[in-house]
Amino acid sequence: MERVPILKIGDILLVSIQVDMSDQTAVQLQEDLAERIVATGCHGVIIDITALDIVDSFVGRMLSTIASISKVLDAETVVVGMRPAVAITLVELGLSLNGIRTALNVERGMELVAAARGDEWDEVDGDEDVETTATT
Amino acid sequence: MERVPILKIGDILLVSIQVDMSDQTAVQLQEDLAERIVATGCHGVIIDITALDIVDSFVGRMLSTIASISKVLDAETVVVGMRPAVAITLVELGLSLNGIRTALNVERGMELVAAARGDEWDEVDGDEDVETTATT
Repeated sequence: MERVPILKIGDILLVSIQVDMSDQTAVQLQEDLAERIVATGCHGVIIDITALDIVDSFVGRMLSTIASISKVLDAETVVVGMRPAVAITLVELGLSLNGIRTALNVERGMELVAAARGDEWDEVDGDEDVETTATT
Repeated sequence: MERVPILKIGDILLVSIQVDMSDQTAVQLQEDLAERIVATGCHGVIIDITALDIVDSFVGRMLSTIASISKVLDAETVVVGMRPAVAITLVELGLSLNGIRTALNVERGMELVAAARGDEWDEVDGDEDVETTATT
């Protein structure tokens, strides 16, 4: 079985998807990624799909699942490198990749992760205020 | 034909090899990489081979060729993520990957590129001195 490698760069885990994803490969990637997020304490996951000619509903769902898992483990997910044709096909298929952030390339993805972290801290502060109000 | 994606991260081009390399894919990668080095002016190429279970003489030669091309275009090449089993097989096969720098992971590879750039500047200084002597 093929295993998608996960590369750690600073505070970010980088996954470059190049092979056709089977059920097994997708599940394995989700497990590996969850383990690596916990092991490294990384706060960002960047998934590069430059190599993908097509993103079908299966891959779309996989990306959503990864984003959800990462979110639970306190990491932002950004999908980068989507080809124009893939974007067009996605829209035509009605797959809007809900809840997934996208960026043009890895560098912009990294900026987005950093920015998202900033936003989140604001949100956390907000939540804390609300909780304080609720408990008093 | 599969095309290996090249990701730009800062001053470095990152290539993660995950598919079996055919003659055509290898040549395409070499061309793409040469173009990207020139287009971006990057000074480092990191080739990640985490996903490779085996590195045969073909892949070994491809890595050497990429390193040579990059060198001519003023970029350092570092191969990262070699599995222990791959290293053992390489030695057993008598393939020593001459002229290729290796590092354990992408982060160390980046440090190595930075360090190599430092060394090179020293060398360039040395060469300039020699040239000055020769022309006078």
